[in-house]
Amino acid sequence: MGTKGLLRNLHVFSLVLFLVGFQGSAQGRFFSVKKPDPKEAAATARWLVSQNSWGVLNTISSDLGGAPFGNVVSFSDGLPKKGTGIPYFYLTTLDPTAKDAMKDERASFTISEYPIGTCGKIDPENPTCAKITLTGKLKLVDKNSKEEEFAKSSLFSKHVEMKDWPKDHNFQFFKLEIQNIFLIDWFGGPKPLSVDEYLHPKKNKLSSIL
Amino acid sequence: MGTKGLLRNLHVFSLVLFLVGFQGSAQGRFFSVKKPDPKEAAATARWLVSQNSWGVLNTISSDLGGAPFGNVVSFSDGLPKKGTGIPYFYLTTLDPTAKDAMKDERASFTISEYPIGTCGKIDPENPTCAKITLTGKLKLVDKNSKEEEFAKSSLFSKHVEMKDWPKDHNFQFFKLEIQNIFLIDWFGGPKPLSVDEYLHPKKNKLSSIL
Repeated sequence: MGTKGLLRNLHVFSLVLFLVGFQGSAQGRFFSVKKPDPKEAAATARWLVSQNSWGVLNTISSDLGGAPFGNVVSFSDGLPKKGTGIPYFYLTTLDPTAKDAMKDERASFTISEYPIGTCGKIDPENPTCAKITLTGKLKLVDKNSKEEEFAKSSLFSKHVEMKDWPKDHNFQFFKLEIQNIFLIDWFGGPKPLSVDEYLHPKKNKLSSIL
Repeated sequence: MGTKGLLRNLHVFSLVLFLVGFQGSAQGRFFSVKKPDPKEAAATARWLVSQNSWGVLNTISSDLGGAPFGNVVSFSDGLPKKGTGIPYFYLTTLDPTAKDAMKDERASFTISEYPIGTCGKIDPENPTCAKITLTGKLKLVDKNSKEEEFAKSSLFSKHVEMKDWPKDHNFQFFKLEIQNIFLIDWFGGPKPLSVDEYLHPKKNKLSSIL
């Protein structure tokens, strides 16, 4: 194969990389940021949250006699590359999740590394394919507050179609007030990680993942 | 570009398609089976379950004072192309989920269409990107029963690394005994779908999705 042939194939390979990259983005990955070392629990947890676009929000079901009820929801923890670690949601009480939270605010939010695309051939349940569950209280964000403005810009920048969702469904901004963190990112059980370590990780660790 | 050049590029494009297809499989999709019409609630629900490899299993947390606790787990509802609709799991009581179920068997299992890759650019929370929550009882499958043999072959055929998971972790087979189904696959709220309709859908509908 001559130089011209090689160059031509390089162009085709660029297209391959573009296509594969695009598919990665469609699966919920926002920025191609390297996964932190699993020993860095806070950095890994914040990476998992900032790289994902959706997860499962769990409440105590009022319709189903107190059963634990999980629902697929989109979320954002801040403007792109400016995550805070706190997940914000845009929910309507036409759905059970927001309705449940109004009666019992106990909730957890679970996200997986698997849809980011960095687990490769490793099984989703394998502990090296990271997963995190944030447990706490699902709270309505105060209306017309600065925080509501922040939740809105955080969510609408990552989930552009939200701004056009039907007004008569009365979508409202919610947040998870985190009380406990369950992080699995390697063998040996959950990583000890306090809410304070998660919300305020060392800056040098954070700058590389956001 | 001459015929030779075209042929050469066709080879490279085949590689592209292989790579993109492979990534689709790594995201949890097993068979390229067309999504059923959203009007066909039972077929859509069974398609969602048979096409996925993982979801979030929710229990009442004994460690966290009764909070709803979601955990990322792998599952299988049967041998490839022979799904039953009943999700089986391979869990250890070293993890909170199995431990919780031993104390309170109320549970739900939530899966999303998003990681299958068929939602395109639609937001994961958009109702046309389908999601299902099966609520019921998380039960240990009887030891040395025919059902345990079925659970084992169902799980190990879809999750090949499971057979090599550490023996001393005492993994056991669990199933969700389904009591309620929450399916969103279009606008207009959850689709009415009974457990019987889900477990025994019309055969002509099922043959096209399994």
